[in-house]
Amino acid sequence: MTEVVNLTTMEVDALIDVDGGLNLTDGHARLVLTPQQSDIVARIPGMFEEAVRRPFPEIELAAHKAFFEAIGQHSAPVGSGRILSCYSSTLATDIVARALPAGATVAVLHPTFDNIADLLKTRGLELVPLTEEELLAEQWPGAPVNAIVVTLPNNPTGLITPEGHLKSLAEHAVRHNQIVIIDASFRGQVRDAQYDTYAVLDAAGADWITIEDTGKLWPTHELKIGLLAYSERTNLPIEHAFSESLLAASPVVLQLITDLAGDWVDGGYERARELVERNRTVVKETLAQVGLKLADPDSQISVARIELPEAGPDSAVLHKEMLKRGVHVLPCAPFHWADPESGLRFIRISLARPFETVQKAIQTMAEAYKDLTPTS
Amino acid sequence: MTEVVNLTTMEVDALIDVDGGLNLTDGHARLVLTPQQSDIVARIPGMFEEAVRRPFPEIELAAHKAFFEAIGQHSAPVGSGRILSCYSSTLATDIVARALPAGATVAVLHPTFDNIADLLKTRGLELVPLTEEELLAEQWPGAPVNAIVVTLPNNPTGLITPEGHLKSLAEHAVRHNQIVIIDASFRGQVRDAQYDTYAVLDAAGADWITIEDTGKLWPTHELKIGLLAYSERTNLPIEHAFSESLLAASPVVLQLITDLAGDWVDGGYERARELVERNRTVVKETLAQVGLKLADPDSQISVARIELPEAGPDSAVLHKEMLKRGVHVLPCAPFHWADPESGLRFIRISLARPFETVQKAIQTMAEAYKDLTPTS
Repeated sequence: MTEVVNLTTMEVDALIDVDGGLNLTDGHARLVLTPQQSDIVARIPGMFEEAVRRPFPEIELAAHKAFFEAIGQHSAPVGSGRILSCYSSTLATDIVARALPAGATVAVLHPTFDNIADLLKTRGLELVPLTEEELLAEQWPGAPVNAIVVTLPNNPTGLITPEGHLKSLAEHAVRHNQIVIIDASFRGQVRDAQYDTYAVLDAAGADWITIEDTGKLWPTHELKIGLLAYSERTNLPIEHAFSESLLAASPVVLQLITDLAGDWVDGGYERARELVERNRTVVKETLAQVGLKLADPDSQISVARIELPEAGPDSAVLHKEMLKRGVHVLPCAPFHWADPESGLRFIRISLARPFETVQKAIQTMAEAYKDLTPTS
Repeated sequence: MTEVVNLTTMEVDALIDVDGGLNLTDGHARLVLTPQQSDIVARIPGMFEEAVRRPFPEIELAAHKAFFEAIGQHSAPVGSGRILSCYSSTLATDIVARALPAGATVAVLHPTFDNIADLLKTRGLELVPLTEEELLAEQWPGAPVNAIVVTLPNNPTGLITPEGHLKSLAEHAVRHNQIVIIDASFRGQVRDAQYDTYAVLDAAGADWITIEDTGKLWPTHELKIGLLAYSERTNLPIEHAFSESLLAASPVVLQLITDLAGDWVDGGYERARELVERNRTVVKETLAQVGLKLADPDSQISVARIELPEAGPDSAVLHKEMLKRGVHVLPCAPFHWADPESGLRFIRISLARPFETVQKAIQTMAEAYKDLTPTS
């Protein structure tokens, strides 16, 4: 049995590395601001004044409108009172975990970011895995599953649940009296994931909860919002759980989101995509020189998995060697929360970094891999 | 039995009141920035650049140094790795609640802000009340209590646990193998609460956890940090619980804290105190005209309790009447988390508001009280 440290702990270690190692761990956007984003950040002092002048609900509503429009979610319940602004998507997930009935059984996509499974387990819920293969085959779990959690796009694989599959899941869930929970934290990065999921879920008559995130889109140094939306049918004590966790998000951050969402539809999306794809290309080309390749060549999100052939070192060994050489990446075992061994041949890297950082780090990875692999 | 809605829910209602009612509910500083604070906020865009240039641990350490110095906590474990920066003090409290052993019994000060008790109960802990009278008489609980939570200064009463009493508590806890947990969220507001509690706790050899907060000090619209510090003896999975909740606080907010703490020792404390005391005076004088008075005349924190005589309306009735007149305050029953009835004769108001807001709201309260009270 592989000993599993959670992914965030490794991300914290990378963040506090006093030797200044290269950090390709977390999926947060760690980029220099674009000129357009810099102009917005320059307006923050004025947002403080605005936060005193304008009523909070008005500021929050404007942010919800701008953000959901920017990511194609035209049927999101903006203005209904069923969208809660949290400090982060993690906090939104924990609020959902707390609001679910004690002892409920939850099917969770596998693999996916371990924090989702951890937060649910810590609140005493029973978990069963739903593999990506089962999702693609529309093999949805029945009783005793009370809720089904899908990450869309999935992290780390980038898999986007197709619209027809989501419809099938929603209809299944209605028949089996299950709640559909969508973690769409990476959605803003990928147009293909921006079909109107709220319309699909509502058309099926589903009881749904959705989590959206601004933290993966913009390099705002943790000034972000996790949004928790839920359907009219949802009958869980979500507002009560919210009130235990916070009073309100920051009206300054909400204004920042409004403006960044405006930039996102005005070329910001394309500017961010270009950088990520340039980084993905250098990763692909550099690794090809030592016979390594991307595990998910079609993935469009800002993280990528690298597959390690059985003949060479596994991810635990390569991860350790890269740490020695001053590069932080994530071994994938913890993403496989129900079966860590099955993630041993994968490494996850973040592409939301300056080009030079990714280039240098991946060069180090290629060298480390070569040194660890017996010549045939 | 009084039906108890949690306090934060009432604070949320006040915040989203679209009719623009006066909000004296939450203890957050809702003030116009002083000129000195405005100058600091104007530097935020530069803090974004700095967050890219400087390593995170350096930025965080500077904030911890400045903040703990500004509030007199010279023995806090700054630089030891035993201070965690969280999004809020609520999140810090939840992290502690999660890290405490499942099923532990916790003594919690009574009355105090209901959120503390709620977060502990939600994590499955058993609670017993520790009254302020017991605290002042140094009657500390023995077995089966595993941890003792004291709010210092207490919210809503403003009671400051004297240094000798904290020493007595710490020594008692060592003898009984208990953890001392201090919620010092309001400490920054009051010099008398700024004796070096870390020195007292460490001198006794106690196993302690302390929560500090910047959110009650500065009108930064929820750009704040809750700090979770713990003793070298503390053997709970606090770091693991932290990693389940967040990766890191914002380096921009940490820089903001550093500068605001600098201003705090450079006259900022006195400027804030002056405003709060001016507000307390207008409350006292206006209420005296209708025979009402402050329940805690010696309290120095930015909230105040008003006592309602048995002859007149109780707080539930007065609260409802004030809502009709567009003023939001907090009835105190929920602060008395173990015995809501005992809080029925108290109303809590926040003084961290512009003078005109407090003056107008308290005038409305005096009128409402007069109209509800039978003339003798």
